[in-house]
Amino acid sequence: MTYARNVWYVAGWEMDLAVDTPMAITILNQPLVIWRDGAGDVHALEDRCVHRHAPLSLGRCEGANLRCMYHGLLFGPDGVVSEIPGQEKIPPQARVRAYPVMVRHSWIWVWMGDPSLADVALIPPAVGYDDGDYILGHGQLDYDAPARLINDNLLDFSHLTYVHAASFQAGPVFAQSLPVIEPLARGVRISRWTQNTPAQRARSAPELYDNYMCYDFLLPGVLLMWSASYAVGTAVALDFGVPDKGAALTGLNHTSQAVTPMSDGTARYFFNWGPHRAHGDVAMRDGMMALAAQAFAEDKVMIEAQAKVIARDPSRPIMPTAHDRAVTLFNRLVERMVAQEA
Amino acid sequence: MTYARNVWYVAGWEMDLAVDTPMAITILNQPLVIWRDGAGDVHALEDRCVHRHAPLSLGRCEGANLRCMYHGLLFGPDGVVSEIPGQEKIPPQARVRAYPVMVRHSWIWVWMGDPSLADVALIPPAVGYDDGDYILGHGQLDYDAPARLINDNLLDFSHLTYVHAASFQAGPVFAQSLPVIEPLARGVRISRWTQNTPAQRARSAPELYDNYMCYDFLLPGVLLMWSASYAVGTAVALDFGVPDKGAALTGLNHTSQAVTPMSDGTARYFFNWGPHRAHGDVAMRDGMMALAAQAFAEDKVMIEAQAKVIARDPSRPIMPTAHDRAVTLFNRLVERMVAQEA
Amino acid sequence: MTYARNVWYVAGWEMDLAVDTPMAITILNQPLVIWRDGAGDVHALEDRCVHRHAPLSLGRCEGANLRCMYHGLLFGPDGVVSEIPGQEKIPPQARVRAYPVMVRHSWIWVWMGDPSLADVALIPPAVGYDDGDYILGHGQLDYDAPARLINDNLLDFSHLTYVHAASFQAGPVFAQSLPVIEPLARGVRISRWTQNTPAQRARSAPELYDNYMCYDFLLPGVLLMWSASYAVGTAVALDFGVPDKGAALTGLNHTSQAVTPMSDGTARYFFNWGPHRAHGDVAMRDGMMALAAQAFAEDKVMIEAQAKVIARDPSRPIMPTAHDRAVTLFNRLVERMVAQEA
Repeated sequence: MTYARNVWYVAGWEMDLAVDTPMAITILNQPLVIWRDGAGDVHALEDRCVHRHAPLSLGRCEGANLRCMYHGLLFGPDGVVSEIPGQEKIPPQARVRAYPVMVRHSWIWVWMGDPSLADVALIPPAVGYDDGDYILGHGQLDYDAPARLINDNLLDFSHLTYVHAASFQAGPVFAQSLPVIEPLARGVRISRWTQNTPAQRARSAPELYDNYMCYDFLLPGVLLMWSASYAVGTAVALDFGVPDKGAALTGLNHTSQAVTPMSDGTARYFFNWGPHRAHGDVAMRDGMMALAAQAFAEDKVMIEAQAKVIARDPSRPIMPTAHDRAVTLFNRLVERMVAQEA
Repeated sequence: MTYARNVWYVAGWEMDLAVDTPMAITILNQPLVIWRDGAGDVHALEDRCVHRHAPLSLGRCEGANLRCMYHGLLFGPDGVVSEIPGQEKIPPQARVRAYPVMVRHSWIWVWMGDPSLADVALIPPAVGYDDGDYILGHGQLDYDAPARLINDNLLDFSHLTYVHAASFQAGPVFAQSLPVIEPLARGVRISRWTQNTPAQRARSAPELYDNYMCYDFLLPGVLLMWSASYAVGTAVALDFGVPDKGAALTGLNHTSQAVTPMSDGTARYFFNWGPHRAHGDVAMRDGMMALAAQAFAEDKVMIEAQAKVIARDPSRPIMPTAHDRAVTLFNRLVERMVAQEA
Repeated sequence: MTYARNVWYVAGWEMDLAVDTPMAITILNQPLVIWRDGAGDVHALEDRCVHRHAPLSLGRCEGANLRCMYHGLLFGPDGVVSEIPGQEKIPPQARVRAYPVMVRHSWIWVWMGDPSLADVALIPPAVGYDDGDYILGHGQLDYDAPARLINDNLLDFSHLTYVHAASFQAGPVFAQSLPVIEPLARGVRISRWTQNTPAQRARSAPELYDNYMCYDFLLPGVLLMWSASYAVGTAVALDFGVPDKGAALTGLNHTSQAVTPMSDGTARYFFNWGPHRAHGDVAMRDGMMALAAQAFAEDKVMIEAQAKVIARDPSRPIMPTAHDRAVTLFNRLVERMVAQEA
């Protein structure tokens, strides 16, 4: 499985990165060290000293610099060595690769490809703690499975009926109907009206709504979703078009999720979720996060089991179904991008 | 190490397979899902959904069918998909391999080769709970070692003197003498008279017997053994031939054992053991099972250590000894069969 | 990474080898069984029975012999089989490789190369419990890292300033200056005067000394070091030459350390340490061993992390620094020897 490089990958939650405390993460098989200096700037280098390949993530922050704690070489945020203990001259090859890194929407984003192409405008418009409209909780989960299998899972919500029968309780009708799928320049938009049904997180309540959900799944593997409940009749009145968030009667909420390939067979899954300030409170947010913890553990069991089956014989072809349309569109986009980069 | 495919392998104890509860087992590197439906019928399919390779063993039983709980495809006991949520048409490739499966002598047997050759008559005549003559206990043990090494162990009982010095206590004379070995159409028969010695499980008692033991080791790796104690002189009177079970004075017992190759380097070992109803009771059975637990743990330590040594350099040749005659006969039988199947 | 074979490798502490208790160790990917018989003689054989490759380290000592406890073959200390249960004739191939083995300076040494070249004079002059001058403690540590990375670490003490900032507390000046390095026939000698500073293990005391340390790092990976404190002015008076141990004012101590490659990626590190009888006591020895435990755990964290980084991409070149001179000298010596042996 291949992944695009000229994209921003989520490397962590920015509030989890303490000052002067190097963090190690591997993305696309590249070990990285990321740190925040005393001035608040965040830096990312290859996590391998140029001298004898000790990991710089075991190093010590000194101002904006990072010192390898094996034999003391001092690296600038640009990856250039400025000090070699016991030696006057610094040879030109005394440097490691530096990665463009940005903090946006509560996430640390790293550009894994050609640095000259790193464009902040390509960071997906996730909703983080900097957005005052939503009351969010957040978490992350490590997978012993390729990132691509998690993407596939997120691109086909028909699994809600089966994998999440005990948590999200989507019901069999959900899997029998297809959502609306629209290609985007950098991903896929998936939306669906469910008419005249209970609200999403109040299935046993007597009130009925027209429920709307919509998510963009964007390069390299970022899901941005909102959903809300509207008066019965809204779907027809809008000719099944996009409703106005402000017109929602109840249940308006947002989730941002990101899948980061670590190695070929491992991935880290980042997610936040919570209600709009006008539609819920901290208690509702906590209930949603508890539901997410249950549901995402269900996904992990299924996807890691699937990964083991595939690893046993990767040559076996899949048999796509009608629900795989968004999966196929998105993976083609990735493959086109990978081909262009090559 | 290669194994025959056109044979019945033991996949489990039938009393351990609850209704509507799929069980996963890998045999010959093939992941299988086995389940028993509400009507009591047992089925075996390849444990890999044809859609995106999720394991069907995480699925849900629905009547005689099994539903994949990733995206809801419904499989019949023949492996054919009858329902794809969100899609009307079922393509002809929507099927997985079904395996012939039989319940006999308390074991679930799966035919791993050409289904058209699956012949119930080829199931070895093991003694299970359906046989009222014996009071049996049963168990199983997983090995980090190739099945073939366990077969080899069971085909050469001279190891009783060494591996089981503390449990079966066979003594050095046992290893110095050779048993009678007779080739069978589908295995080897190994028998031995030990004259004028204490009974097998009463070594410190004063009474002496002529003790007889006999086992067939049958394709693909099934050991069926009985032993008993006779009046001193019986061996000579019978010219060392086969005694009548009914004439045994004491100690008549039976054990059935099966070795199933899971992957190249792992195996599952199934066993039962117990006295004939006229020669013992439940307390004796429990004592025998405790002894078996001790002895089979001794085998496991030795065979797994042996497997590690071999894995380090599989090219090194073995040096067979006189005790290896049955091992050689049986392995040649397997190799001939594998060659015919190819 | 390659290693010389015609050398003595440390296989263990001789006082840890109980009589009639076989010990398993792998050296240079060769599994060995080492045992001490009732007469006190120590033997080393390949740890693989010639019959079916069971490990002889699960065997039973019988006089000077070792019996395989799988099927009872009896091996002499020369590796020749003298008994095969159930069989009269012993074929000539019934033997395993025997390794020259010596006990010296508290260590068991095994010669891994051509036995005809095994020369006791090549055993490095370590200091063990047989040397009455030093009060020693000892220990060992297993590494998930190639032995060569541990050798490299021991050949460049500039890491004391960084890896051991919290334990040995060498300070930044230590890493900025280079030691004296002298090639030896079978290794490298590394020495250093540090003038007018506190004694090595009394950094906060007011007294100042000229401190001397010197170690030989010898094939295949043995470090023999002593250090001591002298009156200020001694370094200049000796023109920075080698001082007399007897003239030390305080702090005279000795450590012997050995690095043994087990497999390509694992090693065992043996070490002792302690003060000269005239410069310390058991309490001081215990304090030094506690410091060593802390410091060697720091090394292990760094070197195992380094090994993981290298394993991810072994093709990346290192960038030697001025402090690598001894590393380079020693590794060239090993490579020359490996080339000669090939």
